[in-house]
Amino acid sequence: MIAWSATALKTGAQKQVDNGDIGDRIYKLAVELFPFCRSITGNGVRETLKLIRRELPDLRIHEVPSGTKCFDWTVPPEWNITDAFIIDPDGNKLADFQKSNLHVVGYSVPVDKTISREQLEAHLHSIPDQPDAVPYVTSYYEERWGFCLTHRERERLKPGQYRVFIGSTLEPGSLTYGELIIPGKSEDEVFLSTYICHPSLANNELSGPTVTTYLAKWISGLRQRCYTYRIIFVPETIGSITYLSHNLDHLKRHVVAGFNVTCVGDERSYSYVPSRAGDTLADRVALYVLKHLAPDFVQYTYLDRGSDERQYCSPGVDLPVVSVMRTKYREYPEYHTSKDDLTLISPSGLFGGYEALRHCLLCIEHNETLQVTVLGEPQMGKRGMYKIGSKGRDAGMRRIMNLLAYCDGRQDLLSVAETIGEPMWELSDVVSMLKEEGLLKALR
Amino acid sequence: MIAWSATALKTGAQKQVDNGDIGDRIYKLAVELFPFCRSITGNGVRETLKLIRRELPDLRIHEVPSGTKCFDWTVPPEWNITDAFIIDPDGNKLADFQKSNLHVVGYSVPVDKTISREQLEAHLHSIPDQPDAVPYVTSYYEERWGFCLTHRERERLKPGQYRVFIGSTLEPGSLTYGELIIPGKSEDEVFLSTYICHPSLANNELSGPTVTTYLAKWISGLRQRCYTYRIIFVPETIGSITYLSHNLDHLKRHVVAGFNVTCVGDERSYSYVPSRAGDTLADRVALYVLKHLAPDFVQYTYLDRGSDERQYCSPGVDLPVVSVMRTKYREYPEYHTSKDDLTLISPSGLFGGYEALRHCLLCIEHNETLQVTVLGEPQMGKRGMYKIGSKGRDAGMRRIMNLLAYCDGRQDLLSVAETIGEPMWELSDVVSMLKEEGLLKALR
Amino acid sequence: MIAWSATALKTGAQKQVDNGDIGDRIYKLAVELFPFCRSITGNGVRETLKLIRRELPDLRIHEVPSGTKCFDWTVPPEWNITDAFIIDPDGNKLADFQKSNLHVVGYSVPVDKTISREQLEAHLHSIPDQPDAVPYVTSYYEERWGFCLTHRERERLKPGQYRVFIGSTLEPGSLTYGELIIPGKSEDEVFLSTYICHPSLANNELSGPTVTTYLAKWISGLRQRCYTYRIIFVPETIGSITYLSHNLDHLKRHVVAGFNVTCVGDERSYSYVPSRAGDTLADRVALYVLKHLAPDFVQYTYLDRGSDERQYCSPGVDLPVVSVMRTKYREYPEYHTSKDDLTLISPSGLFGGYEALRHCLLCIEHNETLQVTVLGEPQMGKRGMYKIGSKGRDAGMRRIMNLLAYCDGRQDLLSVAETIGEPMWELSDVVSMLKEEGLLKALR
Repeated sequence: MIAWSATALKTGAQKQVDNGDIGDRIYKLAVELFPFCRSITGNGVRETLKLIRRELPDLRIHEVPSGTKCFDWTVPPEWNITDAFIIDPDGNKLADFQKSNLHVVGYSVPVDKTISREQLEAHLHSIPDQPDAVPYVTSYYEERWGFCLTHRERERLKPGQYRVFIGSTLEPGSLTYGELIIPGKSEDEVFLSTYICHPSLANNELSGPTVTTYLAKWISGLRQRCYTYRIIFVPETIGSITYLSHNLDHLKRHVVAGFNVTCVGDERSYSYVPSRAGDTLADRVALYVLKHLAPDFVQYTYLDRGSDERQYCSPGVDLPVVSVMRTKYREYPEYHTSKDDLTLISPSGLFGGYEALRHCLLCIEHNETLQVTVLGEPQMGKRGMYKIGSKGRDAGMRRIMNLLAYCDGRQDLLSVAETIGEPMWELSDVVSMLKEEGLLKALR
Repeated sequence: MIAWSATALKTGAQKQVDNGDIGDRIYKLAVELFPFCRSITGNGVRETLKLIRRELPDLRIHEVPSGTKCFDWTVPPEWNITDAFIIDPDGNKLADFQKSNLHVVGYSVPVDKTISREQLEAHLHSIPDQPDAVPYVTSYYEERWGFCLTHRERERLKPGQYRVFIGSTLEPGSLTYGELIIPGKSEDEVFLSTYICHPSLANNELSGPTVTTYLAKWISGLRQRCYTYRIIFVPETIGSITYLSHNLDHLKRHVVAGFNVTCVGDERSYSYVPSRAGDTLADRVALYVLKHLAPDFVQYTYLDRGSDERQYCSPGVDLPVVSVMRTKYREYPEYHTSKDDLTLISPSGLFGGYEALRHCLLCIEHNETLQVTVLGEPQMGKRGMYKIGSKGRDAGMRRIMNLLAYCDGRQDLLSVAETIGEPMWELSDVVSMLKEEGLLKALR
Repeated sequence: MIAWSATALKTGAQKQVDNGDIGDRIYKLAVELFPFCRSITGNGVRETLKLIRRELPDLRIHEVPSGTKCFDWTVPPEWNITDAFIIDPDGNKLADFQKSNLHVVGYSVPVDKTISREQLEAHLHSIPDQPDAVPYVTSYYEERWGFCLTHRERERLKPGQYRVFIGSTLEPGSLTYGELIIPGKSEDEVFLSTYICHPSLANNELSGPTVTTYLAKWISGLRQRCYTYRIIFVPETIGSITYLSHNLDHLKRHVVAGFNVTCVGDERSYSYVPSRAGDTLADRVALYVLKHLAPDFVQYTYLDRGSDERQYCSPGVDLPVVSVMRTKYREYPEYHTSKDDLTLISPSGLFGGYEALRHCLLCIEHNETLQVTVLGEPQMGKRGMYKIGSKGRDAGMRRIMNLLAYCDGRQDLLSVAETIGEPMWELSDVVSMLKEEGLLKALR
């Protein structure tokens, strides 16, 4: 059984104390990974995974060839890029890929020509409402090319001829993903999935892979685990579909709870997207932890989904996967723009996401179905657990008696904790003590 | 599959556009039928059904002999009447049946004598609180005679001798009802029942038979139907009991949803009385349609019942029958008085009732259990259904993806539509397109 | 079938009319029992049970030897006491047991010595916040001695030597309890449990045994009973555990509903603690009766438990036992102090508790699963139960038709009464009449 850590989250406190500087270390990893030009395939993904493997030496990196059929999809050609820019009529360089990889539309085909401003316009993307933000745009499955820039810059473009250059390749190659399996006592698995396809963007999405890396480090460091942990770093959509198509039977047999780790880096809020079923162990644990950690968390429905739970919870797949997030994709103004940068996330924000997810995992590890071993209330007096009685009993005794009153061998500890209104992490010592006294036994 | 009509109701709009002048045509039929002296038996019923058969040539008219045992009941003698009046001491004619058939108590035995005002009083009915309204009174199963008049007129009656005349007959005959069966692909049936026993009254009840007539015309005109439609025009209570006693086994085996059509003619409100079970397909459809058509509809309980659902939902009968109404019987001041006349109903009111019920039928026809044919989300891009992506997706795409996300082969389309918050009639085209693409298949 | 009594409680009226002076008689019994020094064992319990046997001659008194193992517990030595007091330095007698048996800590070991004020302090109990109240303190399972006094008196204690005397014995003996079984037609049982271990305290707890005594007298006086009644007078906790350990299999097989009778004597409120399961027949009946009798009753949860339901509802025991109370233990300031005396309870308060519980028993006796014997509505007209119809029906007819509409052979009468919103005691005559008419039959 994993011990609850010394940094156990304080019930109801929005900010957690980070004794281990975990938040700083996650943030530093994000800083290192930020410049890489990630997409759903290509060397940016490989470099990202290599850096993560520095932290997680057992990470296995898989390559799935372009053209591989995965359910309704096909792994696309591999995309790589070295440079991209526009030269305006005055010779100024605009939309410079070297300055930000967001300037080029993801999966742009190569181009090198001179065109009029009017012709250029059809290939430009900007956001009139956010004139200082560069939008993040991709076109994976339709061959296009294009540039993204601020609306303010776009409005300054003069008539004349523009040179456009995109030094990309779109060729047979492979889709790259990382997989880490950390064995536990049981073959049953807890599943973590995060995505490594977004270029220089922070909350959505370097927070997911970096927090997941540190969750994996923490899990690996535990002395014993009830569950086996399956942790994957995949490109969104095509990556999760590819992974599912290769592992579906195993996942359906073994996964007891899963978390799609995304948008766990800012400080503004906590939020939750349920699984499609809505009542899986992952849902129950997520709701339980957020209710205690951040009672004012935002509860979305599955209609608000938008990440890989779309695949994990699709009909016929039906895995118990939820999202426990800080501020959710699509729900903040910087989403999918250059403003979702390293100033949007913080060590404290990342640590909050890490702690919320870590406590979900702890709740799953600690969950078991307990049964009281005696009929009627146990006599606590003869065990030295009952003081001379006047008005009422103290809170500690009440917690013990409530626990014993509900451990009936039918409901699990999570359900008991919900009923008696106690944080599961504060019941742990009591459960251990009552097991030692022979008053509780686990049926799991 | 029936196409949703061009006049499909606008979601949330209380008034529907009536391109086909359906409301006017229903109203005209009500005007024609208004003068007939209907009761639970007799020639008024026969004339009413003959006129309806002009609109619905396949209507079969049944005669059930007086004395026939029907469950706990017996078909009563047939009642007919040609004239009725009172002559006051001054020779004035009062309560003249020729002016309004409400003046005579329904099923009055014949009488022709001269009596004192005091003796007359025991046979008079009026409403002190509504001194200008003639009440509607019947006495089917106890032999009586009586007159109904305004309270104002009653208070003016002078002492003296009054001649009372009722030219009625109560003799062995039969109970008359109409039945129309419109076959569909399936032997499963949708059941419509309305009643033709009320004399010159409009909302309760010529609105029911006239709207039902036009619903039947619309159903008959459809090119194909999933369901068979069973539509009956019966006297209330004894008629539905008679019909049930002859058809119960068939109805229990085949009826998937039924509607008791009554009070569908005024413009004041929409309302709903559930079946006794409360969760049948008819209940789900009625609630769904009213929620979209008239969100401020009045939701009654089965305790507020008062029409033939009393028979259709009785223990052991247990048919899935509900009432979707405009303003409900007993809930408006003109109810069961001479004030419930042709000014109380209107083409627009009748059309609203017609549209609400027609959309219920459409929802039933379109309901099916769909299953997505691929694992994971389908790749919409390769089907040309996915545009270059920046922030979010458009509403149309979101509707498609939501539909695919919930079509899991377990819940029916009505349930999916409820979950994703879309009017079923706006999902129809999407369902067809996705079936053509091979992405959805029907399990029904 | 038991007839509803003439003093049937008036729906919604907080005060019931007590035609039989039941409240006065219960109160007089409480006055008689008040001075006895009850504890969980000893002669105070025996005297109490003897006085109750005067009212209930069939009460069997059981003795269970000290040392008997009962589940996790052991019957303790028997405690008896003849006198106790403190003599202060000036020779004044304080904490005089002859004046109030609350002055000595329950189960105090014998003591007779002279000690300093400082030494005495460790053995004193008082309530600083309630300086005029003597607390009620016990120490059953740890050998101690002590005195209880008002805080005001304690603060006046001068330095000096104090003589302390407790003339108690703690020796092998037995635990004494009373049991009354009143047979009925069925072997299924209704179970009443109350406790006789509190010394001179009134609401908690002489109200329980005295009200239970009068409930038992009422039950015994009934001409016929559907159920067998099992009524026990036990010391709290160890008594119920002892009883369960000897009778568990029988109780689990036969008890359909049970009530822990406690705190039924004051006039301030009505309240309810559910069983652990929360949805047993006892719960349904308690909620139903309180909703009609005292709509503003206080509804607690099982987390607020504190009496013998802790044993009766414990995992593996799982009996359907609830508490229907006036003001609940721990929820009033006088609780477990000398202020919970005969002025806190009243004839009217006790009668209210008696009536609430008696109506629970009546509801259980009258509950049965009824089925209407005809299909469709019965023809009430031919049975002379239907008047000439104009607007609506009268309330009595509506009640009859509602009852018939829901008696479908599936739900019990309690559920029907809940659905149709009628007090069960007002449906009794209607049910009898409809059975006589052959329109309803009982399936029980």
